[in-house]
Amino acid sequence: MASMSTAFPKTTPFLSHPLTKSDSLIATTVSFPSSARSRSLRRATLRVRSALIEPDGGKLVELVVPETRRREKKHEAADLPRVKLTAIDLQWMHVLSEGWASPLRGFMREAEFLQTLHFNSLRLDDGSVVNIIEIYKHPKEERIARTWGTTAPGLPFAEEAITNAGNWLIGGDLEVLEPVKYNDGLDRFRLSPFELRKELEKRGADAVFAFQLRNPVHNGHALLMTDTRRRLLEMGYKNPILLLHPLGGFTKADDVPLSWRMKQHEKVLEDGVLDPETTVVSIFPSPMLYAGPTEVQWHAKARINAGANFYIVGRDPAGMGHPVEKRDLYDADHGKKVLSMAPGLERLNILPFRVAAYDKTQGKMAFFDPSRAQDFLFISGTKMRGLAKNKESPPDGFMCPGGWKVLVDYYDSLSLSGNARLPEKVPV
Amino acid sequence: MASMSTAFPKTTPFLSHPLTKSDSLIATTVSFPSSARSRSLRRATLRVRSALIEPDGGKLVELVVPETRRREKKHEAADLPRVKLTAIDLQWMHVLSEGWASPLRGFMREAEFLQTLHFNSLRLDDGSVVNIIEIYKHPKEERIARTWGTTAPGLPFAEEAITNAGNWLIGGDLEVLEPVKYNDGLDRFRLSPFELRKELEKRGADAVFAFQLRNPVHNGHALLMTDTRRRLLEMGYKNPILLLHPLGGFTKADDVPLSWRMKQHEKVLEDGVLDPETTVVSIFPSPMLYAGPTEVQWHAKARINAGANFYIVGRDPAGMGHPVEKRDLYDADHGKKVLSMAPGLERLNILPFRVAAYDKTQGKMAFFDPSRAQDFLFISGTKMRGLAKNKESPPDGFMCPGGWKVLVDYYDSLSLSGNARLPEKVPV
Repeated sequence: MASMSTAFPKTTPFLSHPLTKSDSLIATTVSFPSSARSRSLRRATLRVRSALIEPDGGKLVELVVPETRRREKKHEAADLPRVKLTAIDLQWMHVLSEGWASPLRGFMREAEFLQTLHFNSLRLDDGSVVNIIEIYKHPKEERIARTWGTTAPGLPFAEEAITNAGNWLIGGDLEVLEPVKYNDGLDRFRLSPFELRKELEKRGADAVFAFQLRNPVHNGHALLMTDTRRRLLEMGYKNPILLLHPLGGFTKADDVPLSWRMKQHEKVLEDGVLDPETTVVSIFPSPMLYAGPTEVQWHAKARINAGANFYIVGRDPAGMGHPVEKRDLYDADHGKKVLSMAPGLERLNILPFRVAAYDKTQGKMAFFDPSRAQDFLFISGTKMRGLAKNKESPPDGFMCPGGWKVLVDYYDSLSLSGNARLPEKVPV
Repeated sequence: MASMSTAFPKTTPFLSHPLTKSDSLIATTVSFPSSARSRSLRRATLRVRSALIEPDGGKLVELVVPETRRREKKHEAADLPRVKLTAIDLQWMHVLSEGWASPLRGFMREAEFLQTLHFNSLRLDDGSVVNIIEIYKHPKEERIARTWGTTAPGLPFAEEAITNAGNWLIGGDLEVLEPVKYNDGLDRFRLSPFELRKELEKRGADAVFAFQLRNPVHNGHALLMTDTRRRLLEMGYKNPILLLHPLGGFTKADDVPLSWRMKQHEKVLEDGVLDPETTVVSIFPSPMLYAGPTEVQWHAKARINAGANFYIVGRDPAGMGHPVEKRDLYDADHGKKVLSMAPGLERLNILPFRVAAYDKTQGKMAFFDPSRAQDFLFISGTKMRGLAKNKESPPDGFMCPGGWKVLVDYYDSLSLSGNARLPEKVPV
C-alpha cells in the first residue's frame, strides 16, 4: 500500500491552506520565494532517514530557511510584496513550515484546494508545482459546506477565519525566514515532526501511538493509553512510545486554554499516571476546526509525518454540538469509519477508542462493561468543566489531584478576570 | 492507470443510492435477494467482451433477473418485506439495474455512502459486500452540504427527494424482477449500457465521445460536436461515434420536459444538423441533481460504463443559479477542473467545451473569437426559452427551423394548459 500512499498522499483536507488575501499589507516574516534553486538544496539537507513510518509523500518537508542563508533571503524578501497574516494564518504557516502537512510546500493553489474540498486527498504529480503564487476566488459558503457538512452559523473556526475573511485566496510555496516562536514559555514543547522523529529514534521506538487531545487528561484517557501500550507489547513490539500530542492552535472559547492544559498534563506525568519513560509530550501547532470526520483525517495524517504508525481515535473525534440544532453535529461513529476508509491513510493503524467511564464499584476509571451498566458513571467534558468551575470535586480516581487543582485554578483565574476566557497572546 | 481505476472506481458521488425508508409499504417490483447464489450466475452471463473502454470496476453490472428465472424470483419475493418507491427512487433503480453505476450492485450501504460523501470515490474490496440490507440514519443536512456545497433552500433535487424524505436510509444489493419501462413512447430510446455497447460495436466505433445534455440542441452544440469528431479524426481515429445522451430523469420545473426535447433532437437529426450515421441518440435515465462539480463526475462515470472514452465538458456543467444569492452556485471552471482531477476517472479523456456564440458577421453559430468580441451574440438558455415562449424567432442559423418549432409548440401547449409545466407520467 506504500505506493498508493505516495500516489494519493493525504492532504490536510480542511486546512486553511490558502491564505486569505487582505487589502492592507504590512510587514511580516512570510515571503514567497523568487527562485526554485534553494528548494533542492533544502531538500537534500532535510531528508530524514529512519526506521519510523515514512512521512506522507516519502519526504518530510521543512520550509524554514537554513540559518546560513537567512541574511541573503531576508535581503531578497525586502523587495517582495507583503501580505498581512492573522493569528490563524500564522498557525497554518507554522504547521506548513515544519512539514506537518508534507508533502505540501506552502499554501494551497486552487487545484490543490479543489482536490481537498472534493476528494479529501491530493494526487501528486511530481515536479508539477511551479514557483509562482496563485490568487483565486474564495468560495466561502462552498468551502464551509463541504468541510463541515453544514453552513449553520456558529461554527467556531468558520466564524473566526472564513466568514469574515477576504474574498480571495492565495496559494504558493513558502520559504519561512525564521522558525515560528510564540515566546509563551511553551516553545520548548513545540517539537517539529523532524525533531519528534529524532526524539522517537533516540528512544528506540519500534511503534509510535499518537493521542490527539484538546482537553485535560483524566484517568479514563490514561487507562486507554496504558492499555494501548499493553496491547502493542502483546503484539510483539518491544518499545511502543506514546506521543501525547495536545493541539496548540486556535480553540473555541469554552475549551481550556493551552497553557492551563499543559500545566495539567505536566501534573499527570509528575503524579505517575502516565510513564514519562515511554511518553513524549509535545504541542501540535495546528488550529482546531471542529470539523469531525473531515478534520480527524488531518489529525491522523499530521501524526504520520511526525513518525506515528498507530493512531487512537475516539467517539466523535473533533466533533461538537450542532451550532443551531439540539444534537451532535456528526454521528459519533462517522469519524472512525471515515478514517478507516480514507485514501492516503492506508499505512496508519487506526486504534478505535474503547469507552472508559467511572466504575463506582472499583472507585476508578475502567472500560465500560455494558453487562453492569448501572455501575458506571459517565463524566462528560461539559460536566467536568462544570465541576471544576464550581470548585466541586469529581469522584476519587477520576483525575489525579494535582491535575484537578490546575483546572480549579484556571476557572478561579477566570472568575477573577470577569468570567471571560483570557485570550492567549499570539505574535502576528 | 487501469489498475488504479480498478482500485478506486468512481462511484456516483451524489447518487441518491441509499433508499429513503418510508413507513407505508406498498407492493412494487423491487425486492432484496435472499441468497447470494444467483449473483454469480448473473455475473457470468453478463460479462461484456469488447474493444470499447472497460466499464468501471472491470465488469458491467446488470441487475435485471433473466427471464427464465423471473417466475421463481417473483415467487420468492412475494414473502419479502415491501418498500415504497418514489418516482425518483424508481429512476435510481433503473440506473442501478442497467449498470450505469457499475460496480455498484444496489442502493449504497453506509460505508459506501460515507465514502462518496467524503471522497467522491469508492474503494472496492472484493467480495466484501454481503447480501444483507443495511438501514442507517439519513444525515440530510450533511448530505446536502457535502453534495451541493450549500444548504440554501431551493435546490431542486434536495427539495424533491431529500428534505422531506424519511430519516432512515436503506442500502443493499438489488435483483430487479422486470426491466424498468415507462411506457411513454420513449422506451425505445432508453438503451442500457449493455445495449449501447452492442450498438457502438455494431457500428465499429473506435472512439466514443459522449455529450450530456438536458436542453434543446442549438447549432452551437452541433458545431461543437461536429468539431470534436473532426479533431478525433485528426488524432487518427477512423470512426468516432457521438453518443448524444439527453438526461431522462427528474429535471427542475423550468427545464424543457424530456418528451419535447426528444422531439427537438429528432428534428435536429432529420434536418441534417447532426449526422445520423455517426450519432447514437439515447436517453440517460438518471435524475438531475444540479450539483455542478460533484454531479459532473457521475455524468462522466456513467458514460464510461456505456462505452464512452471521450467526454465533452462545458462551462459550469450541471450548474445553476444560487437558489438564494444573485450569482451562479458554482464557479464556471470548477466542474472541468474537478473532473480532470477526479480519482477513478483517469481513463476518460476530458474534452473541454469551446465557447460557441452567434457570429453576426457570418450569420451562424461559431467559436467565439475574443479578438472581435463585438461580432458575437450570446444566447443563454434563459434567453432562448424566453424567445420561444414569446413566439419570437432567434437569429437565422441559431437552431434548425424544425427544432425551433418544437420549442414554440411546447410553450404553446403550456399556455393552453395554464402556463404550468405538464408533469410527465412516471410509473410508481
